[in-house]
Formats: sequence, C-alpha cells, structure tokens
Amino acid sequence: MPDKVRIALDAMGGDHGASVVIPAAEISLTRHPDSEFIFFGDTAVVQPLLDAHPKLKACSRLVHTEIAIKMDDKPSQALRYGRWKSSMWLSLDAVKKGEADVTVSAGNTGALMAMARFCIKMLPGIERPAIAALWPTLKGESIVLDVGATIGTDAHHLVELASMGSAMARILFDLDRPTVGLLNIGVEEVKGLEQVREAGQILREGNFPHFDYIGFVEGNDIGKGTADVIVTEGFAGNIALKTAEGTARQIGQYLKSAMARTWQAKIGFILARNAFRALSDKMDPRKANGGVFLGLNGIVIKSHGGADALGYASAIDIGYDMVRYDLLSKINQTIVRDDNVAKAAAGAAS
Amino acid sequence: MPDKVRIALDAMGGDHGASVVIPAAEISLTRHPDSEFIFFGDTAVVQPLLDAHPKLKACSRLVHTEIAIKMDDKPSQALRYGRWKSSMWLSLDAVKKGEADVTVSAGNTGALMAMARFCIKMLPGIERPAIAALWPTLKGESIVLDVGATIGTDAHHLVELASMGSAMARILFDLDRPTVGLLNIGVEEVKGLEQVREAGQILREGNFPHFDYIGFVEGNDIGKGTADVIVTEGFAGNIALKTAEGTARQIGQYLKSAMARTWQAKIGFILARNAFRALSDKMDPRKANGGVFLGLNGIVIKSHGGADALGYASAIDIGYDMVRYDLLSKINQTIVRDDNVAKAAAGAAS
Repeated sequence: MPDKVRIALDAMGGDHGASVVIPAAEISLTRHPDSEFIFFGDTAVVQPLLDAHPKLKACSRLVHTEIAIKMDDKPSQALRYGRWKSSMWLSLDAVKKGEADVTVSAGNTGALMAMARFCIKMLPGIERPAIAALWPTLKGESIVLDVGATIGTDAHHLVELASMGSAMARILFDLDRPTVGLLNIGVEEVKGLEQVREAGQILREGNFPHFDYIGFVEGNDIGKGTADVIVTEGFAGNIALKTAEGTARQIGQYLKSAMARTWQAKIGFILARNAFRALSDKMDPRKANGGVFLGLNGIVIKSHGGADALGYASAIDIGYDMVRYDLLSKINQTIVRDDNVAKAAAGAAS
Repeated sequence: MPDKVRIALDAMGGDHGASVVIPAAEISLTRHPDSEFIFFGDTAVVQPLLDAHPKLKACSRLVHTEIAIKMDDKPSQALRYGRWKSSMWLSLDAVKKGEADVTVSAGNTGALMAMARFCIKMLPGIERPAIAALWPTLKGESIVLDVGATIGTDAHHLVELASMGSAMARILFDLDRPTVGLLNIGVEEVKGLEQVREAGQILREGNFPHFDYIGFVEGNDIGKGTADVIVTEGFAGNIALKTAEGTARQIGQYLKSAMARTWQAKIGFILARNAFRALSDKMDPRKANGGVFLGLNGIVIKSHGGADALGYASAIDIGYDMVRYDLLSKINQTIVRDDNVAKAAAGAAS
C-alpha cells in the first residue's frame, strides 16, 4: 500500500475549471489527509486559488500549462492541439509515468477518452474503454456502464462491457458471480435494438463462468437493484444517468416547496429534519459523481463537466479509494482473465 | 362535441389483462360519468369482472374474442395471428369504424404500432407514428417523444418528431411557438450519435416557423422543463422515461423509510401529511401513465404493460381528454400543415 495517494488533477477541465477543482481538492483532502495533489493548469489562474487554500497548497504541486481542452472540441481536434501539452494530457501522462496514482478530469469526455487511449493505453484484448458509474439502488449499489465513453456499439462491445462491469462488481462488491442485466426497452427477447438482442443471445448462450446473466432489464429496474451490473451503450447510458439525476433534483425541489407550504408542514419538517438530512444526502446526485474508466492501464476518473466542488470532491474520493485499495489492478487482472474466457464463450455462442 | 365519450378497451392487453382494465375503467368512469366503454376480450374472463362492477357494466358493451396478442410476440407474428380478430385489433378497428372515439391498450407496443398503422392508417406525409409522453417538470409539463414506438432512427424522422411534438404542444399547452430540444449526451454540437447531430443541423438551419429549436438538451434538462418538447429516438426515450419513473419510486421508498426511523420523524410526518400527500401525488409515475400515438388518423393511447388500475385509469383519462377537447384533430391539422412547411425547410437546410 502506498504511503500517500498521489492525485493528478486537470485544473482546467469542466465548465468551471480551477474555481471548482481547487475547493474540491480541499474538501477531499479533509476527508483523506494522506493525499497529495499535482495540479495541471494555467499558473495565473490556479496559483491565486491555491494561495487561498494554504492547507491544500502545503501538499500540492502546480505544473503550468496554458493549453486547455475546450468542452466543444472534437476528440481529433483536441488531440491535434492538446497532445503532449494540455492540462488534460499532462495529468494523464503523470499517471502513465508513475508520478501520480490517479487522475481526475471534468473535461470533454470524448477528448479524455481519446487521450487516455493514446497516453495510458488499453488493457490487452480490450478494444474500447468504458465509463462505469456507481448507481445507488434500493438494495445498495449497482454498476452501470457505459455512461458515455463510446457512442454507438455492436453486440461484441456489449459483451465486453458485461465482462468489465462484472469484474468491477466482483472486486467492489465482493461477489463471486455478480448478476448482469442488459438494458433494453422490454424484457421480452424480441424487443429492442438488434445489437442488444444479439448481445443478449451471446450472453444467454455463453454460460459465462464469472457472472450470471439475468436477461433484459428496463430503465425502472436500475433503481430497484435488479442486477449488480447494468450493461448499455454509452448514449442510452448517459441519458439514463442524467435523467435519473434530473429526476432526483426535481423531486428534491418538490419536497422543499411541499414542506414550506403550511405551518403544519413547516413544523413537521423541523421535527423530521434529521430524517430529511439523511434523505437529501441519499438523493444528492453529487454524492454519486465520478465515473471510472474501465479497460485502461491506469486509473482515470471522469467527473461531470458541470459538477460543483462537492460533486467534484466525490469524484476525487472514488479515485482515492481505487488507489488505496488497489482496486484497478485487481479489476484489471479479473478483466484480462475473464475476457479470454468470455471471448471463448462468445465464440462458441455466436 | 360528442354526447358521450366512447372508449374501446383492449381488455386482454398488458401484464395483468382484464383484472386491471376493468377496475381502471370503473375509476375513470367515476371521474368522467359521460363515458361509455366497449371491452374486447374473452367473455369467460371479462364477464365475471364486469358483473362485479355493476355501474361500469351499465354503460359498457363486451365483444368476445379469445385471441389475445402476447407480450413477447414480434409485430409480424402478432399481425399474422391477430389481425382482424384479436382484442387489440378489434379495439383499433372500433376507432376506425367510428364505433369508438378512442382506444387504450396496455399490450405489446410493437404489435400495437404495427396494427395501428395497418388498421387506422397514418396521416398524409407522416411515415412512422410516435408515442408522446406528458412529462411533469419543474415548470409544468413537457412532451417527450418518441418513448418507444420506433426503435432506431434517422435525422429526418427526428425532424418529423419535432414537427409532431410541437403540434401537440401548441394545442395542449396553448403556445404559439413551443420550444424544441433534441436529447443528446452533451450540449455541444460535436457530440452524440451522427443522426442526432444531423437532425440538429437541419433544425438549426431550417428556421421552422412553428417552433423554436433551442439545441441539444441532456437527460437532466427534461425534469427542469428546459424545452416544451423533447425529441429523441424511441429506444433512448423509453429508457429515459422508465429510468425517471424508477428513480421517483426509489426516492418514494427512501422517503417512507426515512419518515419511519425515529419518533420525531414520525410525528413530523403526521404533521406534514397533507404536504406529503400532495408530494406523493406529484411524484407518482402512475399519474403520468399513458402515451399518445401521434401520426395516426385516430386516437390510440398506450398504457404501460405493467400498469395497475390507477395507472391504467390515467391512460384512459388522457384518451378521454383527447376526445372531449377534440385534441387529435386539432393536432393532426397542425401536423399536416406544419409537416409541409417542415419538409420545405428541411429540404432547404440539408
């Protein structure tokens, strides 16, 4: 186990850049005093913010770069001007060189994925990385992937996602054979996109030894905790994730205004305030912020572009845990081993 | 305005069939005593249930058929054995023949769509029907379409959905130029599936006179009410809808157990019970059940397959309102008029 967890942060990424990243690092440091930070970004912007957080500054290093990847650039554009020198690339490179144990970015997802593939490289046998989200459910937590790394897919990529997601579930949830469901618009075998149906057939007939395929699941099954791992293509997965977050926020608003409507409700709210606090903690989508890149040779965490400091701190916390408990190397060992079995099984099934 | 609203119900459709459809019709009848019902289904099953609801029975007619469309049949299979004679077909046919003003089914969506196209026929110029859902938002309500009629799409179908959805919003929400957003995984123009980006370009450059295209929106924008109309392909739309419903249920469960944890919380809950009642009413996904088929020459409402009586009753209520306020013919006039303009605009833009 390392002495310190060394965290590289892309200080220019996301909608708010350093004004969120620095306070977020301070929040995370309070929770995990054995962290160290390397910030990559424009000194003119980052240094004054660091100076204002002396505790954080004491265990941080700042590497200057003026080049920041824009949120609306295509991956190819971002690579052209941002390779070798942007804050995003440099923070990935710190992980590759072993100067940091993990990197977190709230920047352009497509660019981050492309750069991570180039810089950190993929696991042997894995074609495309995925972003896995930890989704709070009525039974605990599930892993939902892909939530936006790869748009559009084929059956074999969906099977690969099942392999990677179940490897993560085995390590994180300490399960022998996690259950895997394939997100679809009905539980009947005839429904949905062709690639989803085809993946369902491979998963059903493959008899994969390391997970238990339970069939199609629907959007409302995610929150129920119907499966430990929910597999979906990145477009639908991202829309599901953000829709759930939006719904949680919406209901939070309803709750707030309902509790302010009458004096009885106000008194009731005061009496039940601890319960409400626990509830709003549970409902707060910021607590679940931070997607884990799977399939890479290093730990990369994607924060929402729009995250505030509390949300971004959750993403750092996930990265911290991944390092502290050596999760990625355990997951990766499982992925590589299982992927070979999966490919043999898929070959037999298709 | 018609004297009575005549409602044809596929009594065998959905996961629960007549055991939900009959009690649901009774609930809806209580709300709208000027309704009449024609049930299509197996007399052996439906008659005893009708006998147990004498008030409903008094304004109902039962047409016997033993053929019911199975939930897991492909549309082509369903058409082969269910055309002319299944409960689903007969209830659609009642609308076509003018014996009923509206039909509601909780049956197999793909089969319902295929049969509706064959039986009731499409509006001139519209290629494929869509299912539009009324989505409660922080600002009121938005229309989200397609939530599952058509799986997979191209840019021109997405533009058609914008046309149909905005026509519905103009009539239902009484707006001159409803705002239209295209559901995507980022608001930047470079992101997402190719057909979504292409549709975005057509909508942006088309200067459509009858709606105001505001660009890409994300999953969390739906609940905010960012746009009056949210356009998406049926697979992602269905997953978004069901994920939102699942999240609302999940938070309802959290709320329940939070309020039962301590005596302060329990007393607080009692004091605030009216506020909670209003809230749970607002959060209840059953209240929003019932998708409106757009693009057809008749009113067809799709209920969730798994809906209970309260949920199914909401779907009947939507159908009732569509008839009572003559909404579909107003929407259809707008669709046909706008579609011509849209096609000209799209042609100019692409």
